[in-house]
Amino acid sequence: MNRSYDILCMGRSCIDLYSNDIGAPFVEIKSFAAYVGGCPTNISVGTRRLGLRSASLTAVGNDPVGDFVLNFLNQEGVVTEFVPRKPGRRTSAVMLGIEPPDKFPLIYYRDNCADIELTIDDVLAAPLADSHILLISGTGLSREPSRSATLFAAEQARALGTKVFLDLDFRPDQWHDMRAYGVTVRSALGLVDIVIGTSEETKAATLKEQSSVSVEHSQVSDAHVAGDIRQAIATVLAAGPEALVMKAGAEQTTVFLRNGEVIAAPPFPVEVYNTLGAGDAFASGFIYGYLKGWDWRRAARMGNACGAIVVTRHGCANFMPYEEEALVFIEERGGF
Amino acid sequence: MNRSYDILCMGRSCIDLYSNDIGAPFVEIKSFAAYVGGCPTNISVGTRRLGLRSASLTAVGNDPVGDFVLNFLNQEGVVTEFVPRKPGRRTSAVMLGIEPPDKFPLIYYRDNCADIELTIDDVLAAPLADSHILLISGTGLSREPSRSATLFAAEQARALGTKVFLDLDFRPDQWHDMRAYGVTVRSALGLVDIVIGTSEETKAATLKEQSSVSVEHSQVSDAHVAGDIRQAIATVLAAGPEALVMKAGAEQTTVFLRNGEVIAAPPFPVEVYNTLGAGDAFASGFIYGYLKGWDWRRAARMGNACGAIVVTRHGCANFMPYEEEALVFIEERGGF
Amino acid sequence: MNRSYDILCMGRSCIDLYSNDIGAPFVEIKSFAAYVGGCPTNISVGTRRLGLRSASLTAVGNDPVGDFVLNFLNQEGVVTEFVPRKPGRRTSAVMLGIEPPDKFPLIYYRDNCADIELTIDDVLAAPLADSHILLISGTGLSREPSRSATLFAAEQARALGTKVFLDLDFRPDQWHDMRAYGVTVRSALGLVDIVIGTSEETKAATLKEQSSVSVEHSQVSDAHVAGDIRQAIATVLAAGPEALVMKAGAEQTTVFLRNGEVIAAPPFPVEVYNTLGAGDAFASGFIYGYLKGWDWRRAARMGNACGAIVVTRHGCANFMPYEEEALVFIEERGGF
Amino acid sequence: MNRSYDILCMGRSCIDLYSNDIGAPFVEIKSFAAYVGGCPTNISVGTRRLGLRSASLTAVGNDPVGDFVLNFLNQEGVVTEFVPRKPGRRTSAVMLGIEPPDKFPLIYYRDNCADIELTIDDVLAAPLADSHILLISGTGLSREPSRSATLFAAEQARALGTKVFLDLDFRPDQWHDMRAYGVTVRSALGLVDIVIGTSEETKAATLKEQSSVSVEHSQVSDAHVAGDIRQAIATVLAAGPEALVMKAGAEQTTVFLRNGEVIAAPPFPVEVYNTLGAGDAFASGFIYGYLKGWDWRRAARMGNACGAIVVTRHGCANFMPYEEEALVFIEERGGF
Repeated sequence: MNRSYDILCMGRSCIDLYSNDIGAPFVEIKSFAAYVGGCPTNISVGTRRLGLRSASLTAVGNDPVGDFVLNFLNQEGVVTEFVPRKPGRRTSAVMLGIEPPDKFPLIYYRDNCADIELTIDDVLAAPLADSHILLISGTGLSREPSRSATLFAAEQARALGTKVFLDLDFRPDQWHDMRAYGVTVRSALGLVDIVIGTSEETKAATLKEQSSVSVEHSQVSDAHVAGDIRQAIATVLAAGPEALVMKAGAEQTTVFLRNGEVIAAPPFPVEVYNTLGAGDAFASGFIYGYLKGWDWRRAARMGNACGAIVVTRHGCANFMPYEEEALVFIEERGGF
Repeated sequence: MNRSYDILCMGRSCIDLYSNDIGAPFVEIKSFAAYVGGCPTNISVGTRRLGLRSASLTAVGNDPVGDFVLNFLNQEGVVTEFVPRKPGRRTSAVMLGIEPPDKFPLIYYRDNCADIELTIDDVLAAPLADSHILLISGTGLSREPSRSATLFAAEQARALGTKVFLDLDFRPDQWHDMRAYGVTVRSALGLVDIVIGTSEETKAATLKEQSSVSVEHSQVSDAHVAGDIRQAIATVLAAGPEALVMKAGAEQTTVFLRNGEVIAAPPFPVEVYNTLGAGDAFASGFIYGYLKGWDWRRAARMGNACGAIVVTRHGCANFMPYEEEALVFIEERGGF
Repeated sequence: MNRSYDILCMGRSCIDLYSNDIGAPFVEIKSFAAYVGGCPTNISVGTRRLGLRSASLTAVGNDPVGDFVLNFLNQEGVVTEFVPRKPGRRTSAVMLGIEPPDKFPLIYYRDNCADIELTIDDVLAAPLADSHILLISGTGLSREPSRSATLFAAEQARALGTKVFLDLDFRPDQWHDMRAYGVTVRSALGLVDIVIGTSEETKAATLKEQSSVSVEHSQVSDAHVAGDIRQAIATVLAAGPEALVMKAGAEQTTVFLRNGEVIAAPPFPVEVYNTLGAGDAFASGFIYGYLKGWDWRRAARMGNACGAIVVTRHGCANFMPYEEEALVFIEERGGF
Repeated sequence: MNRSYDILCMGRSCIDLYSNDIGAPFVEIKSFAAYVGGCPTNISVGTRRLGLRSASLTAVGNDPVGDFVLNFLNQEGVVTEFVPRKPGRRTSAVMLGIEPPDKFPLIYYRDNCADIELTIDDVLAAPLADSHILLISGTGLSREPSRSATLFAAEQARALGTKVFLDLDFRPDQWHDMRAYGVTVRSALGLVDIVIGTSEETKAATLKEQSSVSVEHSQVSDAHVAGDIRQAIATVLAAGPEALVMKAGAEQTTVFLRNGEVIAAPPFPVEVYNTLGAGDAFASGFIYGYLKGWDWRRAARMGNACGAIVVTRHGCANFMPYEEEALVFIEERGGF
């Protein structure tokens, strides 16, 4: 199969404004570094730096922040020619306070944002048939028209033999009802080959009660979700995907296969600086291994390495490791 | 299985305002009869008149039109205790011109309407576990929060052994993108046991191009959809339902089973007066037969009879036939 | 001053659906007569029937209800060439129950309606310079873009020597905050020559507390407003208008002039059948007299006669009296 | 008159994110300094630093950015006890690129923001009767409910003998129609004592054509407006205000009085670093002089000094000069 792109990453993007005053409470922040972020966009850069041919299907506004995002992606070599501008809509922004080890208050500016305006026509203009993987994300399902465009893209991918990866990307404040997240994700799972998420996100995908979700310190990217993880895993896999890849930060990654097999991949211990973006680095490394045809464990180890590297750094897309760097990192820690 | 309700009908309701000046162009209408309508609500009344125990899960506003709808349902014996009032939202209304045989301009007043505000909490308060059938409709999937509430209800029904019927109910002007209808319906089909719809609606459910849909004379309830009906049927059934029941107005009903079987049920020829509501009468009759444990053909013939009766009448819910009446109608025309 | 139109009526229009079952509670209504209504549109027809050259600046949707409204106006001879169609917006509708003498529940279907989409460009395309009077209404100020378009029209009218009449047209459910009605009306009064309203509406225009407004039996067109009427009159007149014409249904009309003068015009006693539209008939008659150059009392008596005639009839625009009819009515009752 | 506050500043607030990479194109910015901004909020801080007793009537979201804004205001000694939190709404944010001398691209994140949710109830809870001055701004009139709340506040102030200052604050992208800005401002001018604005803003307030406004380099805070400035001044003053104070950056300030008098106040020449906030510094200095009872020229000179100081600095609120500092600045340049 000869396709021009290894991966087409569909969904949100933003300017990431990350506190330069590490450890300072949010109200005392003096300046923010300016990066690029957003789950699928991070993965487009992460995979690109690992040598894959990545294309982006995000959307930006007709504003300098949109220029900022596109300029960065272009510099990285991520293909942006399929990224539409949405007049009258703002490019998303995110602000982040950084108080390690456990306080990372995060504020989304996503009201009427550009990337949620992705349409079925935008999907039809994108190279779905010419990509090995389509990556979609949970937040892309949160509102119309992005929701039906995302489902449509997954359907098309299926029909075209393009593998569909879903990053669960659970951001509670982007949903009108916590339970609607799970309802919607479940309605998409039949179109997905591989699901990537944390155990909290897996529980969110099978959530029954609103009260099961709690967010502390405005850490929207790290909601706690009550629930039975075993049942959640079973529910997700019963809906169709071949695998559920459960990343776990400092702990081991576990891959749950539809056939019942469970594969563990130990972590690379590092000191946490900023957890944001680590999950997307993981996904990038995992996808790299997947496309190399590696086994689940080895691919997950590659993911773990990429995640471990980013967790020691300040931001997301701008700090994704390069192929050589990741392989050396693993080598230095005893190899795969 | 001992359940209190035969059927719980979820979704839209409205005051139906139907031209009393049959044959008059819309601009010359002098008065409108006031009935009750809306696909699931029609079916709640239609099944009730056939002797089933029906409950409604629609929603109405805090206005006299809401009183009008509830008053009628109560008179009919449809259980309305699970119907929420939605403050600040208007009970839906529909106006209809009647120019037989083929011009029925229809105008929906559904902007910010009450029934699209059905929530997951409303579903949790409804007797899903205590009903044999849950009936949902395509329009209930058109907007949030009704969309996730409808999907949630279907999931719950599945888990509870309650059969899920989906009336395709394609109303193009209720969607931001014609193709989003199909995308959304397809994402729900895995939760559905039996699909009811016309061939146009079946094609809409598998629509690939916006331009395939055309609406003439504002007949939103009777859009024409281009496409390959064989492929559409195959796509619908491949997504999970046991059967696709294709009603066809004056022509025969055809039931397509997942196992490849195709069952035809001939129509009862009558003179068309107003086609609106006939499809919901059909569904009522079909569901009646289904719950009696009849075979597909006999159930569909019962549906055809009910549809034929209503097509000779002025409105929808208010004109649904009673059990005796329908059985006599069939008897007089040579029986099942 | 040689102008083509006597009056340009700007603002809402609708299909009026009025109960044919006089005295029946709303839930028992069997049919509704279909008329045309909406304060400024009623006045366009009312003045036209009295022989004035009237033009409409309402807006309708691209739907059969829009055709219905325009068809009626065209038949009446009201000029509709300046009325824009608003794609994607619905022509307004109103339903009314009629239980004389005092219960007239009224339901507005105005969510996202066409006439609130009137823009400054629509105003620029209208013959403001070629009309003797511009009539605007309170509801036209309730939401954007109609609000700024209405203010803009009044400004232009002022600059062009076109007299500005404001019908207070207080409809509480069209405002996000009862007090915003008064705030907004007061901000417009500096552009108005003559204000027409009831004492309740005058109090609403100077409202200080939300709780001062009460609506019974869904009678949105007849809200009760607590407050000091003397102070309300003083406040309105201090803001600029030359006159406040206070219509009072069965009681006498009173004209309050900026210069302190107060003129009373006795009513014509009749039996009340349906009060809706009577106020607009009054306005039509008053404007007729105003343009004839009559004194305040005589103009108000003409208004009273027109109002009295309509109050004995079923609907609004469709029941406005003709010039001859109104003059004979007055003659028969002892003259002006 | 013994009042607790010198000034109550009503309207927008935000986190100001200002490029730390002076001269860099927006796409190359590495970090942003975090300040507080928003016209009325800048003036609350500017006046406070000059020794006045200032209170804020802005609104913030229930988020860390809201904490950031309030924390800063509290540190400055601006009274924030009347500032409501608006759940579900985001505290406004602004990003700014800085390329002196003439390119300052600015991006507002104001969709569904907290400060436009100010209500009449918020106004009723604020100390209007206990303040010498109420400052309102043009952007506060851009959308409901802030618009009617702002008009209501001005009305109340008038009734209470509180002087009303209006900063024209023209931000074209906050309006659905450029001309609606002027329409709305003009409808408020009858309630205003003193208007502060640039010549561009004055022309915007009397704008007749959309095409008259042009924005370059996303400089929303510095739109160019075509039009006749003399006529614009006359129109503004004819609507009621006692004075129009026209600030002019590097050029002289001119005060136009209703009585026809024109007073010029020469500028203090400085090198421009960042023009943002300079206008609000001017307003602060001017208001300081006004409350001291100084003549127009002396008050405007004080304003010029404060503006000149801020134009040499990086941000807005955080860089407002203190009383001593401003007076010394003037002294060193030859005095008033």
